[in-house]
Amino acid sequence: MTFDTEIDRRNTDCIKWDKMESAFGVSPEDGLAMWIADMDFPPGPFLQEAMQGLLARADYGYFCGLESYEDAIIGWMRDRHGWTVEREWMFTTYGLGNGIAITLNALTAPGDEVIIFSPVYHEFAAKITKTGRVVKELPLAIVDGVYTMDFDAYAGMLSGRETMVIACSPHNPAGRVWTQEELTALADFCQRHDLLLISDEIHADLTFAGHTHIPMHVAAPQIADRLVMTTSASKTFNIAGGRTGCVTIPDPDLRARFHRFFNTLDMQPNLLGVALTRAAYSPAGAAWCDALCTYLEGNAAVFNDGVNAIPGLSAMPMQGTYLAWVDFAGTGMERPEFSERVYGTARIAATPGHTLGKGGESCLRFNVGMPRARVQEAVDRLADAFADLQ
Amino acid sequence: MTFDTEIDRRNTDCIKWDKMESAFGVSPEDGLAMWIADMDFPPGPFLQEAMQGLLARADYGYFCGLESYEDAIIGWMRDRHGWTVEREWMFTTYGLGNGIAITLNALTAPGDEVIIFSPVYHEFAAKITKTGRVVKELPLAIVDGVYTMDFDAYAGMLSGRETMVIACSPHNPAGRVWTQEELTALADFCQRHDLLLISDEIHADLTFAGHTHIPMHVAAPQIADRLVMTTSASKTFNIAGGRTGCVTIPDPDLRARFHRFFNTLDMQPNLLGVALTRAAYSPAGAAWCDALCTYLEGNAAVFNDGVNAIPGLSAMPMQGTYLAWVDFAGTGMERPEFSERVYGTARIAATPGHTLGKGGESCLRFNVGMPRARVQEAVDRLADAFADLQ
Ligand SMILES: Cc1ncc(COP(=O)(O)O)c(C=O)c1O
Ligand SMILES: Cc1ncc(COP(=O)(O)O)c(C=O)c1O
Repeated sequence: MTFDTEIDRRNTDCIKWDKMESAFGVSPEDGLAMWIADMDFPPGPFLQEAMQGLLARADYGYFCGLESYEDAIIGWMRDRHGWTVEREWMFTTYGLGNGIAITLNALTAPGDEVIIFSPVYHEFAAKITKTGRVVKELPLAIVDGVYTMDFDAYAGMLSGRETMVIACSPHNPAGRVWTQEELTALADFCQRHDLLLISDEIHADLTFAGHTHIPMHVAAPQIADRLVMTTSASKTFNIAGGRTGCVTIPDPDLRARFHRFFNTLDMQPNLLGVALTRAAYSPAGAAWCDALCTYLEGNAAVFNDGVNAIPGLSAMPMQGTYLAWVDFAGTGMERPEFSERVYGTARIAATPGHTLGKGGESCLRFNVGMPRARVQEAVDRLADAFADLQ
Repeated sequence: MTFDTEIDRRNTDCIKWDKMESAFGVSPEDGLAMWIADMDFPPGPFLQEAMQGLLARADYGYFCGLESYEDAIIGWMRDRHGWTVEREWMFTTYGLGNGIAITLNALTAPGDEVIIFSPVYHEFAAKITKTGRVVKELPLAIVDGVYTMDFDAYAGMLSGRETMVIACSPHNPAGRVWTQEELTALADFCQRHDLLLISDEIHADLTFAGHTHIPMHVAAPQIADRLVMTTSASKTFNIAGGRTGCVTIPDPDLRARFHRFFNTLDMQPNLLGVALTRAAYSPAGAAWCDALCTYLEGNAAVFNDGVNAIPGLSAMPMQGTYLAWVDFAGTGMERPEFSERVYGTARIAATPGHTLGKGGESCLRFNVGMPRARVQEAVDRLADAFADLQ
């Protein structure tokens, strides 16, 4: 199994490994990098073939042929997600951080409040703040041990100045794969409060058995007039360095509003991102993705079962993604103490939960996108680091 | 000589060849593509090595190590152009179309008039219009057969609503390499009329013997507080598909204004553009660039001498770039007629001069960045197509 292959990303300009020491004081020498969201797996062979193709083509000048890239996206969304996308709905951005930032610029005004369901991918709040909008955190509820959105509670928390929601589907952290009912409720919420919705589906492909991702446009076509979908092959295929994502807007009026701003930036896709995305969204990519999901589900089980066997630690059940979410509240320790045990004693670089917003204060996020043996090693180190609680 | 190598870019998603038929009705079957500004040369070996490096690294995830990329830019500007650049002055954009568009957004207001010296790279006007600013064309004068800026005349043409100049240095088309005197006069003009200045120096490396490009910041440090420099390895090394350019702003206040907007877009460089730029701005790249300039100067001579031998056709002397500029006024023909002879009879796709603005109506721009034999072929075809004027 290729996912078991140990690769050494140290001293290769990989952020996750080369910046872990400056970010967390965890030495790459004997540390485990489990923070930034990319995976320690070799690229799919189809990606290497695409790179071979670029090398052989030996032409880095102005290129056309975006139709085949767009066709690959359209085919992937249709075959994998049952979602029909039209070519003219799509805008290529430099990854989804850029895509979300542009959408905020284009479709909201400075001072608007933008809703996120926290804890959630920390960059949503960063983008909202960067663009001069105001973060409105609505806390996720925990029901049956997993996160869910509590729209009854949210109704009473609104100021009336909210104009947009950024939802993460599936959810980062912990990989909730939202159900049709939850997505319908989200759509109703947006309609009731006249909110635009960015449905960030960058993790759409990474779902576990028994959980099916439903694209928001499929789940709630009735809100197409207020819906921006963001997708990318970057998480699934580990190609974030290609800086290529897709903002898809089915509604012509909303699309025209987006285009009015987007057009002033004069952006054209880059050769690498296009070539890798096209290669990823292929039959070979689909087979690789299936195997990846199975492997990640196994990793999640090893990690979460192992963590849950440690007294005081509690890992949230995952339905997808590789971003495990561990609550240290049961240790009775304050953040500095449990963090020090993870960073200092276990020598694991993990993402501090409070950076993902309210509800994350007692948590750390662990990226299990790595060979199984390392996941087991992480569990063993955590068990040792918290052994005194046994 | 590697530049003599004939490469076939047809049916490879190269815009210049694959879109010439739809753009000009010139079949790639037996046509010559001399429009879009990239070159029909194989990439420098150092670029292929960089690609080999990416392939071997086999990691397309989040990357760091931008310092070595920035160092390469800083070293190149210092060694090739005698220009000292500080790391924090630089912003990486997705090519310079994007860089100029962002600068317009960041530093001017809708409705502002933005000056260009026409005829000039047609996309300057397109960017100004796209961003909701107003194009102010100031015509270049022709003195001793080459373009120059006529600031005495310009003073009387201003509305007072101008807030910025976009200058092309060296100039596209025809490759004027502006002298210290001309650059000083441009700086004075900007000071006198309180104008910001984008000095687009994308063609900086492509100069011919006897002509030295002077970076605007070197030529006129006194206007640093109003100066935005735009540079890229993309023209010199034929890597526009990497979509990577550099906006450099020495002045801290002006830089802060730029950053305020740039930061809302959340852009990070892509792996390919960074790797190619770093490889290009190297000793091997410098040697390649020297050889290229010599070759292009030879091409320009073959083309311009050949064209000037055809009665009615007049090519402007070039001091750099690969963008030759031919005036058909002497034929007495209207644009449809001389164009039809070039596109239809000579089967050459060249850029229509009127798209570069006032003063270009009777001209076509020919890209001579291709093997010498093809340049000769172009001359022969033009001689045939206009043989009746002999
Ligand atoms: C939900 C979500 N959206 C966006 C991104 C970032 O995407 P990009 O690298 O394309 O900017 C991430 C990365 O982890 C993510 O988890
Ligand atoms: C003067 C000038 N600026 C900018 C560009 C375009 O640069 P990019 O491909 O980086 O957008 C060109 C391309 O021909 C050019 O001639």
